[in-house]
Amino acid sequence: MTHIVVMNCNTSESMTAEIGRYARTCARPGTVVDAWQPRWGPDSAEGYYDSFITAAAVLDRLHELPSSVDAVVMAGFGEHGREGARELLSIPVVDITEAAAQFAMLLAPHYGVVTTLGRACAQIHDSLTTAGLISRCAAIEAAELGVLDLETDPEAAVDAMHSAGRRAIDAGAEALVLGCAGMAGMSDRLSAKLGVPVVDGVAAAVSIAESLVALSLTTSKIRTYAAPLPKRRSGWPISKESGDTDV
Amino acid sequence: MTHIVVMNCNTSESMTAEIGRYARTCARPGTVVDAWQPRWGPDSAEGYYDSFITAAAVLDRLHELPSSVDAVVMAGFGEHGREGARELLSIPVVDITEAAAQFAMLLAPHYGVVTTLGRACAQIHDSLTTAGLISRCAAIEAAELGVLDLETDPEAAVDAMHSAGRRAIDAGAEALVLGCAGMAGMSDRLSAKLGVPVVDGVAAAVSIAESLVALSLTTSKIRTYAAPLPKRRSGWPISKESGDTDV
Amino acid sequence: MTHIVVMNCNTSESMTAEIGRYARTCARPGTVVDAWQPRWGPDSAEGYYDSFITAAAVLDRLHELPSSVDAVVMAGFGEHGREGARELLSIPVVDITEAAAQFAMLLAPHYGVVTTLGRACAQIHDSLTTAGLISRCAAIEAAELGVLDLETDPEAAVDAMHSAGRRAIDAGAEALVLGCAGMAGMSDRLSAKLGVPVVDGVAAAVSIAESLVALSLTTSKIRTYAAPLPKRRSGWPISKESGDTDV
Amino acid sequence: MTHIVVMNCNTSESMTAEIGRYARTCARPGTVVDAWQPRWGPDSAEGYYDSFITAAAVLDRLHELPSSVDAVVMAGFGEHGREGARELLSIPVVDITEAAAQFAMLLAPHYGVVTTLGRACAQIHDSLTTAGLISRCAAIEAAELGVLDLETDPEAAVDAMHSAGRRAIDAGAEALVLGCAGMAGMSDRLSAKLGVPVVDGVAAAVSIAESLVALSLTTSKIRTYAAPLPKRRSGWPISKESGDTDV
Amino acid sequence: MTHIVVMNCNTSESMTAEIGRYARTCARPGTVVDAWQPRWGPDSAEGYYDSFITAAAVLDRLHELPSSVDAVVMAGFGEHGREGARELLSIPVVDITEAAAQFAMLLAPHYGVVTTLGRACAQIHDSLTTAGLISRCAAIEAAELGVLDLETDPEAAVDAMHSAGRRAIDAGAEALVLGCAGMAGMSDRLSAKLGVPVVDGVAAAVSIAESLVALSLTTSKIRTYAAPLPKRRSGWPISKESGDTDV
Amino acid sequence: MTHIVVMNCNTSESMTAEIGRYARTCARPGTVVDAWQPRWGPDSAEGYYDSFITAAAVLDRLHELPSSVDAVVMAGFGEHGREGARELLSIPVVDITEAAAQFAMLLAPHYGVVTTLGRACAQIHDSLTTAGLISRCAAIEAAELGVLDLETDPEAAVDAMHSAGRRAIDAGAEALVLGCAGMAGMSDRLSAKLGVPVVDGVAAAVSIAESLVALSLTTSKIRTYAAPLPKRRSGWPISKESGDTDV
Repeated sequence: MTHIVVMNCNTSESMTAEIGRYARTCARPGTVVDAWQPRWGPDSAEGYYDSFITAAAVLDRLHELPSSVDAVVMAGFGEHGREGARELLSIPVVDITEAAAQFAMLLAPHYGVVTTLGRACAQIHDSLTTAGLISRCAAIEAAELGVLDLETDPEAAVDAMHSAGRRAIDAGAEALVLGCAGMAGMSDRLSAKLGVPVVDGVAAAVSIAESLVALSLTTSKIRTYAAPLPKRRSGWPISKESGDTDV
Repeated sequence: MTHIVVMNCNTSESMTAEIGRYARTCARPGTVVDAWQPRWGPDSAEGYYDSFITAAAVLDRLHELPSSVDAVVMAGFGEHGREGARELLSIPVVDITEAAAQFAMLLAPHYGVVTTLGRACAQIHDSLTTAGLISRCAAIEAAELGVLDLETDPEAAVDAMHSAGRRAIDAGAEALVLGCAGMAGMSDRLSAKLGVPVVDGVAAAVSIAESLVALSLTTSKIRTYAAPLPKRRSGWPISKESGDTDV
Repeated sequence: MTHIVVMNCNTSESMTAEIGRYARTCARPGTVVDAWQPRWGPDSAEGYYDSFITAAAVLDRLHELPSSVDAVVMAGFGEHGREGARELLSIPVVDITEAAAQFAMLLAPHYGVVTTLGRACAQIHDSLTTAGLISRCAAIEAAELGVLDLETDPEAAVDAMHSAGRRAIDAGAEALVLGCAGMAGMSDRLSAKLGVPVVDGVAAAVSIAESLVALSLTTSKIRTYAAPLPKRRSGWPISKESGDTDV
Repeated sequence: MTHIVVMNCNTSESMTAEIGRYARTCARPGTVVDAWQPRWGPDSAEGYYDSFITAAAVLDRLHELPSSVDAVVMAGFGEHGREGARELLSIPVVDITEAAAQFAMLLAPHYGVVTTLGRACAQIHDSLTTAGLISRCAAIEAAELGVLDLETDPEAAVDAMHSAGRRAIDAGAEALVLGCAGMAGMSDRLSAKLGVPVVDGVAAAVSIAESLVALSLTTSKIRTYAAPLPKRRSGWPISKESGDTDV
Repeated sequence: MTHIVVMNCNTSESMTAEIGRYARTCARPGTVVDAWQPRWGPDSAEGYYDSFITAAAVLDRLHELPSSVDAVVMAGFGEHGREGARELLSIPVVDITEAAAQFAMLLAPHYGVVTTLGRACAQIHDSLTTAGLISRCAAIEAAELGVLDLETDPEAAVDAMHSAGRRAIDAGAEALVLGCAGMAGMSDRLSAKLGVPVVDGVAAAVSIAESLVALSLTTSKIRTYAAPLPKRRSGWPISKESGDTDV
Repeated sequence: MTHIVVMNCNTSESMTAEIGRYARTCARPGTVVDAWQPRWGPDSAEGYYDSFITAAAVLDRLHELPSSVDAVVMAGFGEHGREGARELLSIPVVDITEAAAQFAMLLAPHYGVVTTLGRACAQIHDSLTTAGLISRCAAIEAAELGVLDLETDPEAAVDAMHSAGRRAIDAGAEALVLGCAGMAGMSDRLSAKLGVPVVDGVAAAVSIAESLVALSLTTSKIRTYAAPLPKRRSGWPISKESGDTDV
């Protein structure tokens, strides 16, 4: 049995639940998926400010990870924190940003990202750049939807994502990546409309996490991702409560 | 059931058998792995000349692929041909070069490649560059072993690979990739010796192929990888015989 | 009068005091410098994990910024958070990483960074990359000192930094950058020993902050750095107390 | 006397003849040009699949090269195989892709490529990237003509190429490169229409081949392009017949 | 007291005077600014040819620099010569191209350049590339104004610059840089019209020069910018006259 | 008959004569080569300062070019000025830096440059970068010889160049480029010693110039390299004398 925690970066319970439900539909038989969210922080992450808050909130929450967990999926597209989690943990950490881009690169010479708000495009560009995956990204296009609009009006969301996807294709993309964990489950409809493969990062990351666990591959600890040095960290971690933290 | 063909690029039957055996140990329950090899071409591919021969020989062989196959793994590290296979086929094609580098990039900020001969380093560099995966590659180091030496003297092979791996680590790599399909199965020993994760491309590619099939993701056909145009191709495919082609 | 807050990213009071003292020696007449530190978080930031904690702790603290402040200096070399502060605030935000690299690039064709621990090199590389300042960086070399060792044994620190600086010069650097806010004040000695200009990021950033204020230049708010969207951010900010927060 | 073989990559006899005729008009007095084509393979190469077939077919044919030949021109724009030929042969090998881009870069700060089908653009991008010549390429634009349409309706071909050339100029190109060996001879008309220099790769490559021969410069054999290792290559070369193979 | 020479690269006395006047409004109290121009050369620099003439003319004029000068500002946007001045002098040399881009990069994730003539765009691209500052430049847009038109019809100039600025913003810029020393003083109007920060290079460079002087930072002399070797330079410097050379 | 002027950038008459003599040995029958030098400027160019002087001196001298000249070779390795000459003239201008790198890139996957002084390496890097030819340059190594030492002690020069060449090969170069016009004629000896092709820029550039003339290819005049605008250029050109200027 493989035990994966999918870590939503925001505190929207409905989105966490939805991500969990979707992740379970993608997982192999024998994989148990728990969807977690931070104990504090923004309802949705839309920009650098929120992203740095959620990065800390996610790391804070990861202190509660039971030893039975085999891998963590970081379910915030373009969000900060993945490298910190790789230091903190000794199990594999898979970011949906990386996972989605990697799969897309196997399916097409260039891919595009369809995300929510234009204000997040530079941050996604940063995330793909530091991940070493930017050179085959043709475009990052925003549907100009708030993260939470995805739930409230899914039809309008798909229409706006369709337009953004079309712009990415016109810019050279031949496959698309869903640039928001909250878009989980919309890939089929978008793919059918646009005629290109559409990769959902949650699905990709869960699958890669299963692979890494199966192959006994885990984070290198020789230098950059070595365990954090023991030291005084005043007031940290912030959430000390334990208990059942799954959604 | 998922049916994967692992396509060795050379005509060494023992290597094809070994790759198949190793791939099967990595595959999930319910996955059937067939190991194929071209009907003609070099015993081993060590450089551009051999690689261009094997690319055509592999494409030639892929004409015989039964419709029951769900995905193809291209099991030649740094070898040519993957984009041609993506045109020819409508199922996912996963190159071990890409798969290995992708997994390594999830485990460390920079990775290194340990390959056989120095003459192949430029070609591997090309392959990672066009795959968009070069920017986090710290070094490509050769053990100066022939591909077939891997079978004849495995102890010496591991020693030479250990030295090459050490050089890659000194150059900044924190994870390693085995740069030859024939190294399949040596990753554990090398990882134990060097203290870093060592990714075998065959294992990584089989696992990713399983994932793509499970997620119903396949190659984009809108432009670059559209099916080859119908036209006269004199004397092609070269191998017309059918029959049981598995090793 | 120009009022600048220099924001140490860690909670070491002696380091905050030292940074403030040094910043004041660099500031022009008529500039008031306050040195702040977060209300929580690690004593020193040495790697991604600490850095993501300090980014949030710094943003948390910046909520207390009085309206009289004209600019903020982010005094953590290679640390996260600068883009979040640019969203949160409407005054200029100058990161010592950027400031130091910019000045060094005016003094030499290539510069090197001398930092504390090797585990931070990849993070500094990320920070310079996303800042668009990496292409003329010849090397990032670690003295293998803990941040707090800088205070406890300054002689040994200078020796170790000298060796690291020499390696950077051998790799092509013709000017050096001090890769840690806690190295403030060591630039003169290192420069005298090595014969190259050595830029301290705190000094550079305070000076650039003064310039931006004098020229009435401030952060672009049209897209990426627009003010954070109003939304529920549960439990945030973490520190609600007000009062005199200067060190 | 300099003896050059211009190697068309496809099996279209009329195109081979046309390339030969054009190459002879470009050659210096005293240069003998033979136009060759593979013994097997596609009538035209339009995409990766065809290109990998032609690469092997070209290498196969090059085994018949008489020792009197001084240089080989690879006359397939963006096609694979050049590095393999450099291994196989000890005389200079000049790819029209490289030759055309090099000349264009001497005439303008940025150049554009006008090619036949959009499906080949990614492949041309790969070829210029691995050749180290992409950074000053402003655009690769397709006329959406099949290779063989160039012969059947030259007027329509020039019109479509004119439009594609105009798009490349709008994207920043100040000189153009003809992205297909079959366009040989169209450069003057396109140049007159668009007011920019238009470089034909066959002409450029023949001229560079003459230069390399005159200067006694030939391929480096110390590592990457060393002669192929002796080994068993089953069923290879495919074409064993000898005789007069010129068109 | 800090003594700065702002070196206009052309011989337009009115422009030199205007640059000087503007620079003085930007300088701190206690800074003395002299505006100089070459003794020979073009009235305006618009392209490589003029730029190479002005580079030599500027270096020629710098031989007359009195020892009381603390820093030199090179006031030609995208013009050649800065590295030569760094060899010749032992005081800091700040190019307005570098200064403007550096400040813009602190204010926005991507910046754009608004310059005079399209013919200068490639040269500005070169200058930012060799300065290591190109990666966050979203666009270089020309207003298609001659340098001297800026003086004769300032209203039309601002309109044309507004259009060019809008194009740069549409291409991803979130801050702008004035790409001509003769645009000094237009930044406020352009910023008000477009809603983004607009950086004038003269202002930025004077301010940075003050900072470098205050921090006792000067050019590295260990290798690339070491003083020119003593040797015969026939007929050089061209202008031997001394006297009061300030405008 | 093709008439080429080879423009030495410095005022050393013996070097100009030697360059001319060597260029003539490389030229085809029917090509007339004149070797020119500026009327003023340094005896040798070793660094940015000299290079900017020689750029203007070369442009100054080019005003005297008779209309019978078909092409100009810029014979200063890594020196400035080529783009200015492309504006000024309507005939092809070939820089030996570009020519040498282009030929080397046809002979090996990576090339190295062997130059005179270390202080010039950054400038050569700039020149290859703006020429778009840097990505396959493995190393730029200095023999630490003055330009004029090449004439006074050719044996010591070859020894020092041999060591520098060896370092470049160790860094990955498989072909070398002579990084100084004054090294003309040393390529054979260096090639024999090191076992790799060694490209002399003067030979390469003369040959390419002949090719461009033969193919009626000349500089694009649509934008960047359009003729200089008519305007007042005070005191320019500096040398007005005419007469026989060949050496």
